[in-house]
Amino acid sequence: MEKFEVKAYGTQSAETPLKQLNIERREATPKDVEIDILFCGVCHSDLHTARNDWGGTIYPAVPGHEIVGRVTKVGSEVSKFKVGDLAAVGCLVDSCRECSSCKQDLEQYCIPGFTGTYNSKDKHLGTRTYGGYSEKVVVDEHFVLKVPENLDPAATAPLLCAGITTWSPLRHWKVGKGSNVAVVGLGGLGHMAIKLAKALGANVTLFSRSPEKEKDAFELGAHAVVISTDEEQMLKVSGKFDLIIDTVPYVHDTNHYIPTLNINGTIVLVGYLGPLDPMLHTVPMIMGRKSVAGSLIGGIAETQEMLDFCGEHNIVSEIELIKMQDINEAYERMLKSDVRYRFVIDMNSLKN
Amino acid sequence: MEKFEVKAYGTQSAETPLKQLNIERREATPKDVEIDILFCGVCHSDLHTARNDWGGTIYPAVPGHEIVGRVTKVGSEVSKFKVGDLAAVGCLVDSCRECSSCKQDLEQYCIPGFTGTYNSKDKHLGTRTYGGYSEKVVVDEHFVLKVPENLDPAATAPLLCAGITTWSPLRHWKVGKGSNVAVVGLGGLGHMAIKLAKALGANVTLFSRSPEKEKDAFELGAHAVVISTDEEQMLKVSGKFDLIIDTVPYVHDTNHYIPTLNINGTIVLVGYLGPLDPMLHTVPMIMGRKSVAGSLIGGIAETQEMLDFCGEHNIVSEIELIKMQDINEAYERMLKSDVRYRFVIDMNSLKN
Repeated sequence: MEKFEVKAYGTQSAETPLKQLNIERREATPKDVEIDILFCGVCHSDLHTARNDWGGTIYPAVPGHEIVGRVTKVGSEVSKFKVGDLAAVGCLVDSCRECSSCKQDLEQYCIPGFTGTYNSKDKHLGTRTYGGYSEKVVVDEHFVLKVPENLDPAATAPLLCAGITTWSPLRHWKVGKGSNVAVVGLGGLGHMAIKLAKALGANVTLFSRSPEKEKDAFELGAHAVVISTDEEQMLKVSGKFDLIIDTVPYVHDTNHYIPTLNINGTIVLVGYLGPLDPMLHTVPMIMGRKSVAGSLIGGIAETQEMLDFCGEHNIVSEIELIKMQDINEAYERMLKSDVRYRFVIDMNSLKN
Repeated sequence: MEKFEVKAYGTQSAETPLKQLNIERREATPKDVEIDILFCGVCHSDLHTARNDWGGTIYPAVPGHEIVGRVTKVGSEVSKFKVGDLAAVGCLVDSCRECSSCKQDLEQYCIPGFTGTYNSKDKHLGTRTYGGYSEKVVVDEHFVLKVPENLDPAATAPLLCAGITTWSPLRHWKVGKGSNVAVVGLGGLGHMAIKLAKALGANVTLFSRSPEKEKDAFELGAHAVVISTDEEQMLKVSGKFDLIIDTVPYVHDTNHYIPTLNINGTIVLVGYLGPLDPMLHTVPMIMGRKSVAGSLIGGIAETQEMLDFCGEHNIVSEIELIKMQDINEAYERMLKSDVRYRFVIDMNSLKN
């Protein structure tokens, strides 16, 4: 298979900082789109993968799965894209296309497992997949998204992970006009959840431990902020929410939020990977037919739907633009939640 | 308020066996139905209440909420029943009738709290409510069910708790022809779950730890039995079930069943009240948009729907008929799961 080299930013081990290196991309096959990467968002998963926090990282690792760029080449069978189009790639670059999940446009739940944009087995080159911290990426057109031309491309990048991760549960649990939605945590995912839920017509409440987040939450579109450590405020929202999107990425007490769910309500966990500690208690769930669920990003068709919706409603992420060379410092700031609300890398900085 | 005395069976403390005592019933008000109790099923909750296992029992306690009897008197405004009708009472004898749950026919989730058939505050007499281990009961007609005349009234009694507790999740999660349903545990609830799910057209699998339950499960209508301690058998049903009804009343590892859920699948807990130990792990839930939910009995309209369905499909519970005087021994046998599958008291034994 024909290949070419591109500059990228990655790491050779869990202990070393990210630095410039070269990786190989395949020459576009008939079904492929080659994209010159303009912007790449910085997701917590990037950091966890670089540092092997979840195990399973194979080095070198090149993170980045919130990619927006310009199409520079298309294969002979590509029909959705032409050279010069604005295009995007999210967390998935391939899946089996044949299982029951793939056939339902739920590629994120592909039964044999989807191919992640980084740190997955690359079916074409036999190596690992390398993410968006690079000059170019080559992806099968099925996994490439169209980007509405009215949106700021830098601020669009985080929609590809933070956006779709919150959009998918909003749609699956049928949030619409008059729904009562709460969001736990105001970070990259949380701030998108507020914007998207509001645009869908929901009444949106932010649960936060930090009173200083109130102002931002209201500016983002929240109708109310509940300080989750204040028992009186929590009591006032007993039985209120049809859906709670819990974006908190570290262990915390899910039991705390169950009483604020309406009958038949669901709290969906999208940020925390691990055991529910303290233990979830069944009684408050049984007494109101309440559910605790998980949800992972979204399918390709649903991601396109979200991008189109954002185009119509002029929704983008709140971002802080950085240079590729600043990524190690950005990771340290992310660990302190010192970002409002997503770092995006200006990939021009890698080219020069 | 006019009252009359009836014989009952109850207990004066957590430590003493049940024995005969007298309780008062109100004279039927214009909206009430007076029922001569023919049969009363024996539910685990009866035992837990008698022995104050959950706390909150106020003595004397008279259990019993699977009641079938004959109408002996109706109030002047009663329209659904006449003297001589076969009638039933389940776990609820009143609710606020005004909250959002009550208005949606979800009296079991009444926001101020429903009035349980026993050990709740009696709004009429100011005492406690006393259950079906008694000669007669007087109940507002809204909470009285019609019993199909073609069903054996003794074997119908357990439908009022074990039946509706499994019917409600089957309906809420839209089980129908071709659904893949699993049932965890083959007891009073589990055997009803198999019968009802099968009659709804589902493919039904029993999860059990005991290979000796296979024969019974197939006779009840299960299409398959999976021994849940056999990892190979568990692997074969990976990703299979749309709904798992978990009827096990003691602590057990819910994580064990999550991999057998289909994408978007739900495991609904109807038997166990307590913390999920070991801790529920979020990753398998997130990787397939899977839910863990609770569900409590069912509403009055849904209970009538279930009884009518059972009438059409000739479904009743498998029972062992006992005398009222045998109740203490029956409790001991229940604790050893030594019953196939529900004790029902022939209330004639109390009258003589």
